[in-house]
Amino acid sequence: MCDSCVMRSVAGALGRRGVLAAMAASAAALSVQPAAAQAVRSAPVHRVVDLTHTLRPDFPTFGGTPAFEMEQAMVLARDGYNVMKFTYYEHVGTHFDAPIHFAADGATVDRIPAENLVCPLVVLDVRAKAEADPDYQATPDDIAALERQHGRIPAGACVALNSGWDARANGPGFRNASGNALRFPGFRPDVAPLLIERNVASVAVDTLSLDHGGSTSFGFHKAWLGSGRWGLECVANLGALPATGATLVAGAPKVAGGTGGHGRVLALV
Amino acid sequence: MCDSCVMRSVAGALGRRGVLAAMAASAAALSVQPAAAQAVRSAPVHRVVDLTHTLRPDFPTFGGTPAFEMEQAMVLARDGYNVMKFTYYEHVGTHFDAPIHFAADGATVDRIPAENLVCPLVVLDVRAKAEADPDYQATPDDIAALERQHGRIPAGACVALNSGWDARANGPGFRNASGNALRFPGFRPDVAPLLIERNVASVAVDTLSLDHGGSTSFGFHKAWLGSGRWGLECVANLGALPATGATLVAGAPKVAGGTGGHGRVLALV
Ligand SMILES: [Zn+2]
Ligand SMILES: [Zn+2]
Repeated sequence: MCDSCVMRSVAGALGRRGVLAAMAASAAALSVQPAAAQAVRSAPVHRVVDLTHTLRPDFPTFGGTPAFEMEQAMVLARDGYNVMKFTYYEHVGTHFDAPIHFAADGATVDRIPAENLVCPLVVLDVRAKAEADPDYQATPDDIAALERQHGRIPAGACVALNSGWDARANGPGFRNASGNALRFPGFRPDVAPLLIERNVASVAVDTLSLDHGGSTSFGFHKAWLGSGRWGLECVANLGALPATGATLVAGAPKVAGGTGGHGRVLALV
Repeated sequence: MCDSCVMRSVAGALGRRGVLAAMAASAAALSVQPAAAQAVRSAPVHRVVDLTHTLRPDFPTFGGTPAFEMEQAMVLARDGYNVMKFTYYEHVGTHFDAPIHFAADGATVDRIPAENLVCPLVVLDVRAKAEADPDYQATPDDIAALERQHGRIPAGACVALNSGWDARANGPGFRNASGNALRFPGFRPDVAPLLIERNVASVAVDTLSLDHGGSTSFGFHKAWLGSGRWGLECVANLGALPATGATLVAGAPKVAGGTGGHGRVLALV
């Protein structure tokens, strides 16, 4: 996405103050790529934490209808080896949202730079609030409280929302439908300009959407993906991570023209 | 795969000497998982190298017919967001081979432990030999020469064959068909028991098959996947890596019952 396109698409969603933040971030984005002399990660890696749910045909979807099918195409005893055939809509299971998912001229998933997929992971714990209120939206105050306790969110980081929702992924409580509305936590749209100001590279949620389930305007999606950034949905096991210090390794599918899709998401601690 | 299953399946492919090596490896495999006090990687990470080809519908396949299709299912202007629908046979593009691909009771791709996907990467450079002979098969002598120069291959490593074939991935030279036969390099089957003895966790090739293109018996596939290990095919950019010192982060798709499939493969240097 060109800089002027970023400006135009962000302008609609954020208003003037957000645009100024986005302009600063857009200029700063060029420095996100790790310089040769700067370590992507300087601490030893002791542990691998799998942030990926196992994808099955019955994995809950935002729309409520199955989005992943598989059938056996080749059979060992008959063909000499086993091969499955998949048919699926990209945004299923633990998966990526590329900018183009919500932005007409946004980057496709294959154009997210590899350097961008390995980054510091900051975990925002809102489990208590989400347990009390399934419609909870994380706020700029939540980010401020996180920074008071753990320091400023580093440029290039991924900020992951731990609402505790991953424990529900195998049942109806994940969508948590109530009439026509879904009820699960997400990011409030005004968190987007703050994280853009921090020059954060990506966000992750353990629910079916970056926006809370009740959103009909997808304000966070539009502001965030519209700024040329990417997201992760339906991640698992954030509770096994420290608030800061882990490194995300996000295995985005490298499909030409893709808008996102299932990928393996790991954290190194 | 239970130990006795491993023994039976390996027995057919390797004979008694291989079985003994596999039994030792099977016992040792329990210690491959990184202990809490032992670092998965102790050196700082300075660079991310993308070992993944961009997947497109015309990416060359072993069988010669396209194996990946996509169409736009949701359109931003009409539906509010863009979503693609994929239809594909798992073994396409830069992809994984899980044990079950060639072993009736082998593990499916979702059962490869996450710890196993992050490991030391050892690169065996056979580019000169492959340029002189497109049917070249890497031998135990090649492994011995590598170890003389760079030290013993560590337990739990991934051994990657750099034949230079990744540069051909966008043209007919990748399959390199000659009559009914394909002509590209691979691992000779007798390398399998040696790498099993070293308790190597996985292998990677920059060609369409772990076996060389002319193989009709798939001897390396059967011995390797039959021992409960996994492989990567069609990896890119091995030439950008040192022979030792890089860490592989292999983003295997976590699909219940999958036999492999496209995933993002990165190296941390
Ligand atoms: Zn999505
Ligand atoms: Zn394969």
